[in-house]
Parts: sequence; structure tokens; C-alpha cells
Amino acid sequence: MNIVETPAELRALCDRVRAGGARVGFVPTMGALHAGHLALVHEAKKHAEFVVVSIFVNPTQFGPNEDFSRYPRTFADDRARCEEAGVDAIFAPAADAIYAPGDETRVSVGVTAQHLCGAHRPGHFEGVCTVVAKLFGLVGPSVAVFGRKDYQQWRVLLRMTNDLMLPVQVMGLPTVREPDGLAMSSRNRYLSESERERALSLARGLSRAVRAFDEGERRAEVLRREVLALVEPAADVVDYVAVADPDRVVPFEDGALVGERALVAIALKIGATRLIDNVVLGEEPAPIRS
Amino acid sequence: MNIVETPAELRALCDRVRAGGARVGFVPTMGALHAGHLALVHEAKKHAEFVVVSIFVNPTQFGPNEDFSRYPRTFADDRARCEEAGVDAIFAPAADAIYAPGDETRVSVGVTAQHLCGAHRPGHFEGVCTVVAKLFGLVGPSVAVFGRKDYQQWRVLLRMTNDLMLPVQVMGLPTVREPDGLAMSSRNRYLSESERERALSLARGLSRAVRAFDEGERRAEVLRREVLALVEPAADVVDYVAVADPDRVVPFEDGALVGERALVAIALKIGATRLIDNVVLGEEPAPIRS
Repeated sequence: MNIVETPAELRALCDRVRAGGARVGFVPTMGALHAGHLALVHEAKKHAEFVVVSIFVNPTQFGPNEDFSRYPRTFADDRARCEEAGVDAIFAPAADAIYAPGDETRVSVGVTAQHLCGAHRPGHFEGVCTVVAKLFGLVGPSVAVFGRKDYQQWRVLLRMTNDLMLPVQVMGLPTVREPDGLAMSSRNRYLSESERERALSLARGLSRAVRAFDEGERRAEVLRREVLALVEPAADVVDYVAVADPDRVVPFEDGALVGERALVAIALKIGATRLIDNVVLGEEPAPIRS
Repeated sequence: MNIVETPAELRALCDRVRAGGARVGFVPTMGALHAGHLALVHEAKKHAEFVVVSIFVNPTQFGPNEDFSRYPRTFADDRARCEEAGVDAIFAPAADAIYAPGDETRVSVGVTAQHLCGAHRPGHFEGVCTVVAKLFGLVGPSVAVFGRKDYQQWRVLLRMTNDLMLPVQVMGLPTVREPDGLAMSSRNRYLSESERERALSLARGLSRAVRAFDEGERRAEVLRREVLALVEPAADVVDYVAVADPDRVVPFEDGALVGERALVAIALKIGATRLIDNVVLGEEPAPIRS
């Protein structure tokens, strides 16, 4: 497995791979890898002979009061997991290799990036789009794999890739969960035992929405309140509970009926830890079977 | 010569070309081709076995009161010139092939795009960056050639390409001029005979700056006023006369001394026609020899 730190070295490596006729698969991450990330790697390996995982805690996607500086950095462990998963190269650049002095270019997406996390984390998706555009430029992947735990991110990056006509297939894989339903997240390691118990409210809230939908409920506001009633007591702050169009990620108006599919997405804080989770009603099974 | 109208067809064509081991050279234009454009094509042919010229009057780089609707469309003539110049493919898409319904992504550059034309044409460079990013995504060129008559555009696109780590060499070629010094421009055809005579003031103003610089003048404000004194009587509106750092395109402060190189750039209107021209002092010969 190659460990690459500089953009020039990565570009040369990927150029050689493509010149040899292999496809490059790409899994961009911020490290602190868990089983969710490894599922992305396994999928990438199905579509490409050479898989690159980037590990880069991207400063431009964090707000000034967010957890950039304390975000977990676990390189030795990440490296071992990648090796075991059959990753061909890890790209772990320094921040100033990605944002060189004089860097001025930003990529932004409109309405898909405006609601939900876009409204609660100003600049977040611009940071995500910009770093992913850079990484796509450098790696030249034919396929890139993301997790739908970050559902809006996946939709925003699909939008970006399509609009900028990039020759990359962007895939979004279902969320990988712990046995009790908690969505895997690098931030779960911040949680104390009692916080982790409260964090189960996200998956339970989503399950409640699935049940209501399966029983015929189509009123967006009712679905939203059902979820909110369940998560609110467990959270310290509820950023949002949203019922939205799953393609453009625009919330339904109060009083609207959802169609055959609806995104239910939650963002909340438990202690200092911000957690997100989602389900697409009409499409996916409930997050937990219990 | 291929005439291609759809993105899918262009991508397939360029994929085949690259798969055959050839490099793709790219010259993005808005059509109304003149000798300046053809110089870009000839340069592209030196660096690539297959040259694509796009002809697309990009709506997002025009302001609401600009000349988008009356911009010259001369496809039959453009086609003949491309054929004669040995172009391999013309890409002439409809607007909604480039900006499909739901398109939301924009690419923007910071300080390099803020002054000069960036200040006088809000949104212009965002439109330029966005369309060029799309076209790069579609064509996958190894080299793209631009004219330095649009000096700031060239610097902005260099910045974008570098920042987004795109695997494209961006070249900027010297301005091609009429024998009397007028910079070639698709917009020159708007000019009446008397307006064209007044338009010579741009090249004459630049020549005056070159002479002053060659004689030792380094005061930015004096260089600027020399040019302004010459162009102001000939113009209906002077958008700007700027003396700026040639790399970041940031004007020198009043009272500053220019260094070994300085960009002198002019934008003005003669009648309804907006014309631009520039020279880099310390680098290029005067625009006209007379």
C-alpha cells in the first residue's frame, strides 16, 4: 500500500495506474475510519482496480466554533484498516498542500446545499465541494464512493459532479449502523456512555417516521413532529428535524403531503457532539429492526 | 472535422481520442472567430494531436445590460475558419446542454477576479470560471489556450486550474493586433469607421505607458494618468485605466512604485461597444510600433 503525502506524487501515481489501463476508485475521508468507511472501500474495489483513500481533515468545511481542532486523528489505526481492506494508496496531505498560499478558488452549489446542514453550517458545503473538486482533479477517479449518512453531502456532490461535467461516477452507499441502530460516525467516539444511550434517539426517531409512513401517514408536518417529539427530550440542542424532497433536499412546507419518497433528516447535539442521521421513507427499511 | 452539439457526444469523442493515445488540445471561444483565435488554435496544435474548439456564447458571463443577445453569431464563417486551421472538432452546444435544468454549481475565484473587469462586470468571472470548468470536465484537455487580450481572464483561469488541481496546462498567448495596433476582438465589428478610429486610442495609450516606463517612469499613478489623458478624450465612458500587479491583478495604490513588471489595462466604451486592451510593462514590446 502506497502512503502519499504530496499532490505531485499522487498525480504521478494515478497517471501511471490509468496509463496501465486500470480504473481508479476513490474514497475521500477525514480519517478516524470505521466500518462505514470500509464499506465504501469495498464498493470502490468492485468498480476499480486501484483504490485511493484520502485522509484529510478539511479545514474549510468546519465553522469557527466547530470541532476542527479536536476532530479525531488516528492515522496509525486508519492505515492498518486500509491495508487490511486492500486499499492501494492512502493520500494524507498537509493542509497547505491542498490550500497552497494564494489559493482563491471555491466551488459552491445552490439550493441543494441551502437547507438542513447548509442552513446550520454556513460555508460547510462550499468547503466540501471545493476540497472534493480538488481531490477529483488530482486523483482522476472513474468512481468515487460516499456514505448516505451524510445524505445532503452526497446529493450536493452528485449535483456538483453532474453540473461540472466531471467524468466521475458518484455513488452513495446506505448508512452502516451499530447493532443497536446508532449510525456509524467518527464523532461517536466523543460520546460518554450515557450520551451514547441518548444518541439512540436519532435512529429511534427515524424508525418512528418509517412506521408512521408505512401506516399511511403522508402529512410532512405530522411526520416531522413525531420524530421531533422523540428526539427532543434526548438532545441538548436540536439543529433540525426536516422532512424534505430527497432529490433537491428542500423541506416540504407545513401542510404539504409528502410523495412516494421523503427524506427525514435529523441534526442535533448531545453534549458537545453534533450527530446527524436520516432515512428515505418509501425507499429504505427502518434504521433499526427492534 | 467533427461538428458536435451534445455533451455526451463530445465526451465519447474525446474519450476515444485519449484512449488512442492522443492528447486533446482545447480552445474555448464564443465564436465570431478572428486571427487571434486562429493563433490559439495553431498553438494548441503544437501541443496536442487533436484540437477541439468550443463555440458557445456563455450567458452566465454577461451582465443584464450587456451585449449577450447581440453578440455576433457567425457559425458558417467560424466553421470554415476552423476547417482551414486544421481543427479536429467544433463543439457548439445549446445553452441548456451546458446549463441543464437544475444546474446549481458555480466556480468562483477570489482576489484575482475582484478588480478591473471583476469590479465593473459583477458575476462575469464566476460565469467564465463555471463554463470553463464544465468544458474542461467534458473535454479533458491536456492543454487549453487563451488569449492575453483578456489578460485578467487568463490569470483567473490559471488560478482556478491550479487551485482545483486540474490536469490541464493553461496557456496565454500574446494579443494579435491589426496592422494599426487595434487589438483583435469579436466586438470590433460593432464599430463604425469613426468609432474604429477612436478605438486606436487604447493601443496608443498603452504605447505611451511603454515609452514612459522605458524612460524610467515607475510611479504607478503617473503611468496611469498618462494613459488616461490619452484615452479619455476618445472614449464615451472609461470603465478603468489600471496599473496593477501582473500576477494577482491587484492595482497599485496611488503613490506606489511599480516593480520590474506592471500590467497596464484599459476598459472603455466607444458608442455602445466595450473594448479592452492591456500590456505588461517590462515584459512585452509596445502594442504598436508607430
